[in-house]
Amino acid sequence: MRSITILGSTGSIGTQALQVVDLHPERFAVTALSAHANSDLLFEQVRRYRPKMAALTGASSCEVPADLSFCQFSFGPDALEKLAHHAPADDVLVSVSGMVGLRSVLAARKTGRRVLLANKEALVAGGQLVMSACPGTGQDATLLPVDSEHSALFQCLHAANGNPYRRLSLTASGGPFRQWSPERIAAATPREALKHPNWDMGAKISVDSASMFNKALEIIEARWLFDARPEQIDVLIHPQSIVHSLVEFEDGAVIAQLGMPDMRVPIQYAMSYPQRLPSGVPALDLAQVGTLHFERPDPVRYPALDLAYRALRAGGSAACVLNAANEVAVAAFLKGALAFGGIARVVADTLQRVGTAPVHNLEAVEEADRQAREVAGTVVKSLRT
Amino acid sequence: MRSITILGSTGSIGTQALQVVDLHPERFAVTALSAHANSDLLFEQVRRYRPKMAALTGASSCEVPADLSFCQFSFGPDALEKLAHHAPADDVLVSVSGMVGLRSVLAARKTGRRVLLANKEALVAGGQLVMSACPGTGQDATLLPVDSEHSALFQCLHAANGNPYRRLSLTASGGPFRQWSPERIAAATPREALKHPNWDMGAKISVDSASMFNKALEIIEARWLFDARPEQIDVLIHPQSIVHSLVEFEDGAVIAQLGMPDMRVPIQYAMSYPQRLPSGVPALDLAQVGTLHFERPDPVRYPALDLAYRALRAGGSAACVLNAANEVAVAAFLKGALAFGGIARVVADTLQRVGTAPVHNLEAVEEADRQAREVAGTVVKSLRT
Repeated sequence: MRSITILGSTGSIGTQALQVVDLHPERFAVTALSAHANSDLLFEQVRRYRPKMAALTGASSCEVPADLSFCQFSFGPDALEKLAHHAPADDVLVSVSGMVGLRSVLAARKTGRRVLLANKEALVAGGQLVMSACPGTGQDATLLPVDSEHSALFQCLHAANGNPYRRLSLTASGGPFRQWSPERIAAATPREALKHPNWDMGAKISVDSASMFNKALEIIEARWLFDARPEQIDVLIHPQSIVHSLVEFEDGAVIAQLGMPDMRVPIQYAMSYPQRLPSGVPALDLAQVGTLHFERPDPVRYPALDLAYRALRAGGSAACVLNAANEVAVAAFLKGALAFGGIARVVADTLQRVGTAPVHNLEAVEEADRQAREVAGTVVKSLRT
Repeated sequence: MRSITILGSTGSIGTQALQVVDLHPERFAVTALSAHANSDLLFEQVRRYRPKMAALTGASSCEVPADLSFCQFSFGPDALEKLAHHAPADDVLVSVSGMVGLRSVLAARKTGRRVLLANKEALVAGGQLVMSACPGTGQDATLLPVDSEHSALFQCLHAANGNPYRRLSLTASGGPFRQWSPERIAAATPREALKHPNWDMGAKISVDSASMFNKALEIIEARWLFDARPEQIDVLIHPQSIVHSLVEFEDGAVIAQLGMPDMRVPIQYAMSYPQRLPSGVPALDLAQVGTLHFERPDPVRYPALDLAYRALRAGGSAACVLNAANEVAVAAFLKGALAFGGIARVVADTLQRVGTAPVHNLEAVEEADRQAREVAGTVVKSLRT
């Protein structure tokens, strides 16, 4: 039996991780849970999974129901690190979003816990710090990707048999604007951007999927997770989201991971790794699917990809700046304060203005993030007038 | 550097194996070569690769050019076993066709050589004998599949990480008759059956590809190579031959091997295993391929598949009988003495008449083969009148 702390237990990944616990109660024990603001669901989860510790990070205090006195509650933004560090779990699933994920990963590693990573910011902004904190490969891996694409690459790389790979191909659905003209994309509304064809996700990630900043962040994550050179990573549009990613070897052989688009498979694999367990996810029937399509992403429709390579080549804090600027731009877009076409513009301009700096510690990452947000805010305003 | 004996060096697989040697002369040394009848090409190969031994199995003697006196020549059908057994190679590539492949595999294993298997009959007719003679898995494997589908499954299974698989899916191009009506297929001519859409192959294997007896034999081979139960193996029609086969795990994750349809990749991987080397085969560009199609094979168009499962369930010599009956039927078809639709009929009737017997040794296998050929010949004649 493995014990797990789930940071972000009321979100999409967190609730599905608890479904995995439900499916295999003899395999997983829940040590701690955290939520940002959804106290009702958190209390319900605590009642059901009986963790020793819980945290509500979006509140400084809160009345805890009397029947939950067996559980020690913490409040406020620092509670995440406390849970990651102190809750006596084997594994910590980091499925919160935002820069706080980076702090949580580093805190979990300080006490040697295995990290199951569903937070993008940790690797995008603090890749170097995370990878130094997470040694071990193969069955001794201390960092397990939860994202479907990175889990797919991770699984494909099991087949490497000691051979180096030549190329990593991340698949991308292409989002809802795949067949729109660049002009129409530039003027897309939040309502249009929130319609993802295959996965049901939150607002920020849905917009990122439409702009492909989601894939830009994944390129950066893949660079760190698999020690790849930027030119070894490419993106392939695959609207059906059946092929989750592919690895090419030196002889031209390609190993791909496929399956129904259901996050329970990669979440469970990270939780049960290196073992595979029944997931309750329907088997892939390729004959029923019938046809798989692939195309190159259009750099005009999706400027985000080029920005990712540019940030990787710049190194240092550039990827952190890209991520922060994108967050500011997406928030502005969702509020109606920025056109969809302005998102990439804000990121490009912010990258240009902020430049890059070394990121040898958490403080340097957070400073780059802060500075990028400030500059991006200014750029957003300049685009409105 | 590894030394290799190539049995069947003038055939399609043999000549491509020598191309792999050409590409990596610092990695491979040729110890022995054999051909059936093409003495001119064999002499040319001996001149170029300078093996210690060579054999011409289709002749009882032959004048050897004076400049090849460094090489010891043997003649006649028993020469194959002699080469497999005595030529001091690390690896023996068995790329001859027919039952003689089984004898060659067993002879090579008697002196502990690694077998690279491109002969179908060895596993189909003598699966139990071959697998007992070829222990070892993973990096210690003593039997390496060369066939593109089985090499693909072998590669996918590297990713198992100790987990059992749930299903093996062999892909099949569907051959030239995939979209023909069953009536038109039944009346197909040899000329029509020899047009394979993706691979350039010999006559027997092209007919087998059109009838899907090729895939029937592969089902039986997969059963032995990967210790699969018949119901764990299925076949997926995939006309582009880009996905070479797939493995499904218990959690629903599927690992597939893909690549351009070029036999040099699986041939080289068997030769260089566990290492991968550059192959000179163009990289797969899925965006350029654009679309991959998959469909279930139609049991009416392709009765061969059901016959394979029937033979596997019967066990013992049944698979050997299926193979022998198919060979007799294909030969009759190519001579114009049997309709295309008669091939499966001959196999089904022969299986029914001959039944199954235990196959604990080579003699039992050869007796089953002999008996099946005799009965199949009778069935062919009965269908003509």
